[in-house]
Amino acid sequence: MKFELTILGCNSAIPANNRFPTAQVLKVRGRLYLIDCGEGTQVRLRDNKIKRSKINQIFISHLHGDHIFGLIGVLSSYGLNGRKDPLHIYCPPHLDEIINIQLKYTGHPLPYPIEFHITDPEKNQLIFEDKVVEVYTIPLTHRIPTQGFLFREKQQPDSMIPEKIKKYDIPFHEIQSIKDGNDWTNSNGEIITHAELTTPAPAPRSYAFCSDTAYNESIVPIIEGVDLLYHESTFLHSELEFAERTKHSTAIQAATIALKANAGKLILGHYSSRYIDLDELQDEAKSVFPNTELGLEGKRFEVKMSKKKVK
Amino acid sequence: MKFELTILGCNSAIPANNRFPTAQVLKVRGRLYLIDCGEGTQVRLRDNKIKRSKINQIFISHLHGDHIFGLIGVLSSYGLNGRKDPLHIYCPPHLDEIINIQLKYTGHPLPYPIEFHITDPEKNQLIFEDKVVEVYTIPLTHRIPTQGFLFREKQQPDSMIPEKIKKYDIPFHEIQSIKDGNDWTNSNGEIITHAELTTPAPAPRSYAFCSDTAYNESIVPIIEGVDLLYHESTFLHSELEFAERTKHSTAIQAATIALKANAGKLILGHYSSRYIDLDELQDEAKSVFPNTELGLEGKRFEVKMSKKKVK
Repeated sequence: MKFELTILGCNSAIPANNRFPTAQVLKVRGRLYLIDCGEGTQVRLRDNKIKRSKINQIFISHLHGDHIFGLIGVLSSYGLNGRKDPLHIYCPPHLDEIINIQLKYTGHPLPYPIEFHITDPEKNQLIFEDKVVEVYTIPLTHRIPTQGFLFREKQQPDSMIPEKIKKYDIPFHEIQSIKDGNDWTNSNGEIITHAELTTPAPAPRSYAFCSDTAYNESIVPIIEGVDLLYHESTFLHSELEFAERTKHSTAIQAATIALKANAGKLILGHYSSRYIDLDELQDEAKSVFPNTELGLEGKRFEVKMSKKKVK
Repeated sequence: MKFELTILGCNSAIPANNRFPTAQVLKVRGRLYLIDCGEGTQVRLRDNKIKRSKINQIFISHLHGDHIFGLIGVLSSYGLNGRKDPLHIYCPPHLDEIINIQLKYTGHPLPYPIEFHITDPEKNQLIFEDKVVEVYTIPLTHRIPTQGFLFREKQQPDSMIPEKIKKYDIPFHEIQSIKDGNDWTNSNGEIITHAELTTPAPAPRSYAFCSDTAYNESIVPIIEGVDLLYHESTFLHSELEFAERTKHSTAIQAATIALKANAGKLILGHYSSRYIDLDELQDEAKSVFPNTELGLEGKRFEVKMSKKKVK
């Protein structure tokens, strides 16, 4: 079951150089989570063949236009396509006001409910969980209240080995208990261990989304050991002063956070429109953290189930 | 000097089939007027090499999302690009509320002023004029208050014939008066007529934008004799009942309005996403009004200066 990030937009501020404002989709075991929603997100969802109807949660980092101007279009098109399922939006204060006034004047009432879950971007807390993930806010340092999101896949139960069920003639109603970690005692009172009966589930995977933010090491403990880290890298390090003034990061700063947090892989993004060729940003980051890739529209990053729990 | 319409978006409701929501730019003698502003307008302005900084007036027909969701992106990007010139928006009530709440929460204060000119979509009245055009509202028939726009080029002065200035030794300060239509009397008291001294200016050109609307003949007197008519044609005539219920028009209805109004050319648009191939819509309209063309993204329609005033 996949754990995969798709980049829908990677530019900062305005669409330029055929790059679009921030939007991403994370797929975890068949569920889709939309992260930020720059203008044109609905078109790029379609272009990337993302099944929009499977998105039930949208996570918004902050209210700068390049992260939200596409949201009303997504919501409106859901309505025109007859969506019935509730949609949950996790966002800083006031996004509900922005959306509600547009819904009031710009069309039909939506045929599905929207629930806004207003977050506190200054806190690191669990804001959402379902069967497959937990989502935590990451307090970021920007010009307006801004949060990142840490997606932690939930530990899945171990898998039963089919041959063992047959060998020990284990009744069906005992299987869930064994998968959950218990040993099994047969009718003769013999104990067959959980370890013998199961294949261990893979280790849970994780993704951290950190945009927009100035360099801030206080996020390191929150994202420690994350498999996949997206950290904005609006500028080259030669623009450090401007990055600090606008509370953005350089590629070297993004890579430094990845290094300190022992991330598995770093994805760059939120590039300034001044950079037409992005190789220099990538090279700069790689000089600090080699396993770095450019986030680009349509690019997919999968975290494989390679790490196994130790039995 | 050109009078030219560029289609930036031609689909209805949602972006689909590589077609985008409504937006158009009319160029009149070097001035640019933006009409409606569906999501992605700023990208299509750039793709079509329209000099965005030359747009100082935006005309909005109604508040359905497919006509306005791109406006905040246009306004915001003007700000990020350092625009200083005032921007005038002609629109039905409440658009100012929608925009102002977004400007309040989503970024920096804009470095240029926006002036909203709230119109009454039920009236046919002059809402704007400058040196080159007058713009009138056209009351349309839709589910919410909706107006079209009639752009009338102003009559330009006749041109002096350079050889005549030399022949009669006409002083420079007399020339404007002659261009404006007056004869000239020389120092011997001889009258040289305006007609002899000038080439007549071309007849003013005109463009009518009619979207969205049910079939309504009451607009015919307003747009009588218009050179270029854009009339929405959301559906084929086989969908007449649905068109009537949603207050849209069929291609045949658009063509009937063009015929009754003695339009020079009809441009179709605002197509339902159900139509991937648009030829049938065009064929249907041509059966009533032969000089019909499909409005498609990037297509330009020029009204040439072919008609001359009669001397």
